[in-house]
Amino acid sequence: MSTVVRKSAIDQLLSAKPSLVTVGADVLADALDAQGVAPTRVDWRPPVVGCERALATIAAAPAVQPANREALRRMLAVRPQVVDIIPAHEAMPALTESTFFHAGPPLTWERASGPMRGALIGAMIYEGLADTPERAERLADSGGISLQPCHHHCAVGPMAGVISRSMPVFVVRDRDGDGVAYATLNEGLGKVLRYGAFAPEVIERLRWMQSVLGPVLGQALRRTGPVDLLALIANALQMGDEGHNRHRAGTSMFLRAIGASLIEGADGSAASAVADRAAVFRFIDGNDYFVLNLVMAAAKLMVSAAADVPGSSVVVTMARNGTDFGIRMAGTGERWFTAPAPVIDGLYLGSYGAKDANPDIGDSAITETIGLGGFAMAASPAIVGVVGGTAASAIERTLAMYEITLSEHPLFQAPILESRGLPFGIDATRVVRTGVRPQINTGIAGRVAGTGMVGAGLVEAPMMCFADAVKALAENL
Amino acid sequence: MSTVVRKSAIDQLLSAKPSLVTVGADVLADALDAQGVAPTRVDWRPPVVGCERALATIAAAPAVQPANREALRRMLAVRPQVVDIIPAHEAMPALTESTFFHAGPPLTWERASGPMRGALIGAMIYEGLADTPERAERLADSGGISLQPCHHHCAVGPMAGVISRSMPVFVVRDRDGDGVAYATLNEGLGKVLRYGAFAPEVIERLRWMQSVLGPVLGQALRRTGPVDLLALIANALQMGDEGHNRHRAGTSMFLRAIGASLIEGADGSAASAVADRAAVFRFIDGNDYFVLNLVMAAAKLMVSAAADVPGSSVVVTMARNGTDFGIRMAGTGERWFTAPAPVIDGLYLGSYGAKDANPDIGDSAITETIGLGGFAMAASPAIVGVVGGTAASAIERTLAMYEITLSEHPLFQAPILESRGLPFGIDATRVVRTGVRPQINTGIAGRVAGTGMVGAGLVEAPMMCFADAVKALAENL
Repeated sequence: MSTVVRKSAIDQLLSAKPSLVTVGADVLADALDAQGVAPTRVDWRPPVVGCERALATIAAAPAVQPANREALRRMLAVRPQVVDIIPAHEAMPALTESTFFHAGPPLTWERASGPMRGALIGAMIYEGLADTPERAERLADSGGISLQPCHHHCAVGPMAGVISRSMPVFVVRDRDGDGVAYATLNEGLGKVLRYGAFAPEVIERLRWMQSVLGPVLGQALRRTGPVDLLALIANALQMGDEGHNRHRAGTSMFLRAIGASLIEGADGSAASAVADRAAVFRFIDGNDYFVLNLVMAAAKLMVSAAADVPGSSVVVTMARNGTDFGIRMAGTGERWFTAPAPVIDGLYLGSYGAKDANPDIGDSAITETIGLGGFAMAASPAIVGVVGGTAASAIERTLAMYEITLSEHPLFQAPILESRGLPFGIDATRVVRTGVRPQINTGIAGRVAGTGMVGAGLVEAPMMCFADAVKALAENL
Repeated sequence: MSTVVRKSAIDQLLSAKPSLVTVGADVLADALDAQGVAPTRVDWRPPVVGCERALATIAAAPAVQPANREALRRMLAVRPQVVDIIPAHEAMPALTESTFFHAGPPLTWERASGPMRGALIGAMIYEGLADTPERAERLADSGGISLQPCHHHCAVGPMAGVISRSMPVFVVRDRDGDGVAYATLNEGLGKVLRYGAFAPEVIERLRWMQSVLGPVLGQALRRTGPVDLLALIANALQMGDEGHNRHRAGTSMFLRAIGASLIEGADGSAASAVADRAAVFRFIDGNDYFVLNLVMAAAKLMVSAAADVPGSSVVVTMARNGTDFGIRMAGTGERWFTAPAPVIDGLYLGSYGAKDANPDIGDSAITETIGLGGFAMAASPAIVGVVGGTAASAIERTLAMYEITLSEHPLFQAPILESRGLPFGIDATRVVRTGVRPQINTGIAGRVAGTGMVGAGLVEAPMMCFADAVKALAENL
């Protein structure tokens, strides 16, 4: 039977019109073109220089493929649900009075960029450690504060990602496991702490979030019961969100989930509580980014499940602190692989321009790590109005990401791709082999502390992180 | 200067490789193909037989183009806003105790289809004219009720579209004019009056809508202030709705608009009112079609502005009563042009199939009349999960509608088409000339009275309506 099939296949091959396929450099293809023959050109580049041996070692190691399958299985098994809001220091006891968590890989005050310093200054004022920006800076200069990455404490934060002890945080738990992740509540756009602003209005908003938004919304969440974030994200992708910089649908679905509980309030609520609940509804309605932080916490919970799978080349963290871009890989545990944070190709607000932009910053690339954001732009043609480009290029960016991922997410789908699952599970070896870097879309912070948001745009993760990660994995094998 | 340009163009023409273009029937193109030359095939059919003279008369009449521009201008100048909910008989005094409005062109009880009869039976029971379906039928058989189209009373209703005097209706007004339109409140899916169901649960739901949903939501709307429906629709199109059978985004944005008012309630509201307001929020949250009726009322208000523009071939109504499909045109005023209601190509719920389906029914094709629904499927690739087809075909359907429309809506855009405005302003002469019929997507009612919804699918408006309308316009000219 198989002989027959093989013979027929050979017949087909010999009788069919020949196709010409060229791979890599354009010289041969151009020569064929000049002779009137149009070859099919295959885009190919040699792997990153210096990684050839590491790639060969990994390709030959029998443990890698099963490890990668296990890493994907663990991530996909997580069912993140938001269940509550509590003060950050209750969630994360490491947050002492002088400790601040920040986005991205480990960082010192000395190496911190403008927006990171701005956010830390604001947080010091908010926590009562200083009463002016100057005094806050002096405190930090004198070593009076301790900095640790959010990622080391089951947490994530967008942009500067600063978490201080009094801030309310979402509690996201795994319905089917014991994992937990935390994220702050989103402040809105413009002059906000996470973009490095620290004006009095910024601090005042943080205090309202602590005294009203957190408690009222926490109460509504407890009354509503767990809100399934995978379903929320899947739904939002059907409604034109991409899960990083477009959240109008996700924020809408979140408001739908908790709206009835906000109407009902706590038993015996007084009139003032009614005003607070209405203010909470209006605050969320006024901020289409509100659900970003919840999506990030869900993503953090998912990747944490694969944080330590020996032999796996699956990327489980991409994060930036405004100075460095860092990744972590399932097969290399807690080790960070860093490179200078890249500059963003962006659209700018008002009179701001590229000269005002800080390099890439924030834990929000955790969304790309699970196949959202830059990976999901095919689901979100309207995102190009925010980050630039065309609808056609948005689809191309998603298609390119299938080159460097191992799977397709079963629930995260792009309707325009006939509901194909979005690219999921970044394989560091594929990044190094193909030269295709993970696509990230992101907000842009002003480089001067205190400025706030100046734009949004597109950026690719630096190759050096992936090259170093691949070499480290090969050494381990 | 212009000579130089012209010469250069001629040079280009003579020096370039010739292109072969074939138009219409495939015979010539096939012959070229057989000789190894691939022509560009242009799809073209001769105009509908019997309309040639009418089309020529209209093409030669100088009044038609200005009239069409005026019809479009009037429709686009309308700014529909929902402002209140009141009982139908207050809005439309013609609704006496024995009068019922229905979808589509004029209809008698004798000619009414199963779902139309089912909805009328339910409405008679709901209004207390009968206490059993049998008695309701006997009352109608004996001429005890009067039927009039919703469209004759500034109103629209989906599917059977039955409006009786006690039902609450949305009041949609023009921000910049004195127009008004009304629509009932959407009951949800499955066993509901508009699909011809009249079981006790259907009547009970209608009574709750009358006593709780209407008053509570009306109060919230008055507290909120006018809600801009053009903005709501434009937003929903950016979020994957197409405005006829996908309304998850529009319903979400509506809940966002009124949520804070539902929390605040009326001054001095008692605990029971809190429960009612929460129930109203949950009812709307549980029905992603809720905003359909509001979109329809907005569309009715828009087309009403162009209801009488002598000489114009712009279509201002497409509506079906389950027996007939009818259209009205700006240039022929209140006259209906009808044809038998077509059968829908659909996806069926549960064990239902084509044999259970009633022909096309409902005023909801008013959404296609303003460029939504079947015209807007490129904005809504996820709609194919409801009505069938592929995402690629959804885009093709929208592109085909540019063939028969005169303009593109400035606010209704399809992000995937690089934010191109959706096809707007159906020109009856273009339909007859091209043979391209307006694309409608729609729910399918069970053909037996009392059944309810059995599916959803795709249908095209019957050519005969447009052919007759074009002939009538030519006679007028």
